[in-house]
Amino acid sequence: MDYRAESLRLHGEWKGKIETVCRVGVGSREELSLAYTPGVAEPCLAIQKDPEKSFELTRRWNTVPVITDGTAVLGLGDIGPEAGMPVMEGKCALFKAYGGVDAIPLCIRSKDTEEIVRTIELLAGSFGGINLEDIAAPRCFEIEQRLIEDLDIPVFHDDQHGTAVVMAAALINALKLVNKRIEDVRVVINGAGAAGISIAKFLLKMGAGDLILCDRKGILNAEDGLTEAQAEMARITNREKRRGTLADAMQASDVFIGVSGPNCVTKEMVASMKEGAIVFACANPTPEISREDALAAGAAVVGTGSSEKPNQINNVLVFPGLFRGALDVRARKINFEMCYAASQAIAACVKDAELSKDHILPYAYDLSAHEAVARAVAAAARTTGVARR
Amino acid sequence: MDYRAESLRLHGEWKGKIETVCRVGVGSREELSLAYTPGVAEPCLAIQKDPEKSFELTRRWNTVPVITDGTAVLGLGDIGPEAGMPVMEGKCALFKAYGGVDAIPLCIRSKDTEEIVRTIELLAGSFGGINLEDIAAPRCFEIEQRLIEDLDIPVFHDDQHGTAVVMAAALINALKLVNKRIEDVRVVINGAGAAGISIAKFLLKMGAGDLILCDRKGILNAEDGLTEAQAEMARITNREKRRGTLADAMQASDVFIGVSGPNCVTKEMVASMKEGAIVFACANPTPEISREDALAAGAAVVGTGSSEKPNQINNVLVFPGLFRGALDVRARKINFEMCYAASQAIAACVKDAELSKDHILPYAYDLSAHEAVARAVAAAARTTGVARR
Repeated sequence: MDYRAESLRLHGEWKGKIETVCRVGVGSREELSLAYTPGVAEPCLAIQKDPEKSFELTRRWNTVPVITDGTAVLGLGDIGPEAGMPVMEGKCALFKAYGGVDAIPLCIRSKDTEEIVRTIELLAGSFGGINLEDIAAPRCFEIEQRLIEDLDIPVFHDDQHGTAVVMAAALINALKLVNKRIEDVRVVINGAGAAGISIAKFLLKMGAGDLILCDRKGILNAEDGLTEAQAEMARITNREKRRGTLADAMQASDVFIGVSGPNCVTKEMVASMKEGAIVFACANPTPEISREDALAAGAAVVGTGSSEKPNQINNVLVFPGLFRGALDVRARKINFEMCYAASQAIAACVKDAELSKDHILPYAYDLSAHEAVARAVAAAARTTGVARR
Repeated sequence: MDYRAESLRLHGEWKGKIETVCRVGVGSREELSLAYTPGVAEPCLAIQKDPEKSFELTRRWNTVPVITDGTAVLGLGDIGPEAGMPVMEGKCALFKAYGGVDAIPLCIRSKDTEEIVRTIELLAGSFGGINLEDIAAPRCFEIEQRLIEDLDIPVFHDDQHGTAVVMAAALINALKLVNKRIEDVRVVINGAGAAGISIAKFLLKMGAGDLILCDRKGILNAEDGLTEAQAEMARITNREKRRGTLADAMQASDVFIGVSGPNCVTKEMVASMKEGAIVFACANPTPEISREDALAAGAAVVGTGSSEKPNQINNVLVFPGLFRGALDVRARKINFEMCYAASQAIAACVKDAELSKDHILPYAYDLSAHEAVARAVAAAARTTGVARR
């Protein structure tokens, strides 16, 4: 099927993938007096006395905006805030269908860090958490960091951490198949934007033995004109201070993770990796190397971003359950422990008996996977002291 | 029933009067590919090419935020943004139940005009219209005016214009009962805030013969320390340049409209009005004078803001149908003609045979009234050239 043409047609038919519904009766004078005036004055006064009560007396506890500036939408780049809305709305639909979260799409007509931060801070009293989406690097780092510092509700940039969580889950199971430990492997990540940097940090925290980050110019290296975030990565990765191209980096490595662009990895590069090579080529819509070529070149396990192939690695497995768990315990933030718990929960959804090189992750539409993520995240929030209940 | 105590209990049980639901199937790989990636790239690109398409391919066409800064909530005053949320959520529930509009509550943590205007402008690409709510005067005037000038979607401050529309509807029918024409009557409005000023302007546009606006100090008068909006009103009202107290103003007047505070009108003041006096005492929760006292003092028709008494005058009769009509024709703005059409439609819902001094308005929960408003508003938008379709 030509998904894109059919999707355009369906979007015109749907006229919106989500909607707001009324949950209370307002069909009589009495019902109106309870849901609206005069009765509503009392919950208002209760919240005035204790603003925390807004989590009990309104929908705030379950409401999360999916916020974008439209600058890094899918692989399409800076297409503008309105043009990003079909993706935001899609995420909102998935938030509800898979996580029971009431999500609303908000696009911001600004590319200014200060303005974006301020806009979100001014609105934060309406929400139980904030999901940032498709905001370009390096702006996205500062926006997320500032919001995390200033707000006492969870703030999560899905392109960074959702991607890292699902990549880690895929890696946990792939390593089982090739019988290697994360401490012993060398990982090469191609793409030093929001996703690549977040994956690198995540895998290092998981204990990855050696990790090399590459961008278009090859191995990241402190002398190049790097952004602040990239320079930090150049310091904390690449233990042996290698230099050179992506091909040089991949030579004798164990794991390749691509969050970059189409067709930048050859069969020769995959063939140069160690035995039991793991190749996650996740550029969308065209991967760094096709699944077929990677397998032909000797890769043991291959994952891509495509829903058409086995082992789709997509953060839709992460965000609905992650926010469900965080909201359920009124977490103050989403920390690494909660994210790692999500990775482990996703990986554990594939039982050892089912685990194969063509099946390392649960399906995105498997509700039990999202429920498992929510439970694990809530438990990790409690263990690490960020749960309010 | 003690509505306030019961409402508080119910709000704790409801945990939100609205929710977001998913309108599309996402239960299989194929469905996910159509509602989300990769299919969703195509509607994104279509909107990038023509941002107007966001009204066809997303829920934007039907989505309206109910936005407050929490500074003038009900009769409670400045209770803060979070504390205003139960009212905003209630309006959102009514927007959907009565008008089919997807409304979302947004509270803004700022009292700064510039910041509020900028925040709303930055978000406007997500919405089909903007409903401002419970923002204190005089800030609300500038905020609304600036947004109307800058945005090409309808912007409507309900406390001003919704109140004016329903008050005008009530007046149209009350005048029929006392057999007077609006051109011939003298109207006294007590309360020179957002609602009072908007009602005064509205009735003048409808052709009210003479109109006197009062505030706590009595008849508005250019020498007093007036806000800019009040000074304008002092110029365009009070044809005979009267001075004095509210009691002086009411002497020999035909219509009293109260949007002020409790118990500021005595039986003597009502008794001093002309025969066939109309008294709309709409302060909430305690009116300027009770219905019983006004009737005892000789008023011919009495309305209040209370749902417990006949003739409740509440803007819930207005906003759902008004926005339904405006959204249906993709109106660029909401103009006086559309508002006046709404007043006439509401008044016409009470057939001459049913019209009595205890029944001048349809019930708020009468869906046919909201449908009539929507039709009338859409037609007026077309007639005045602000409809896009």
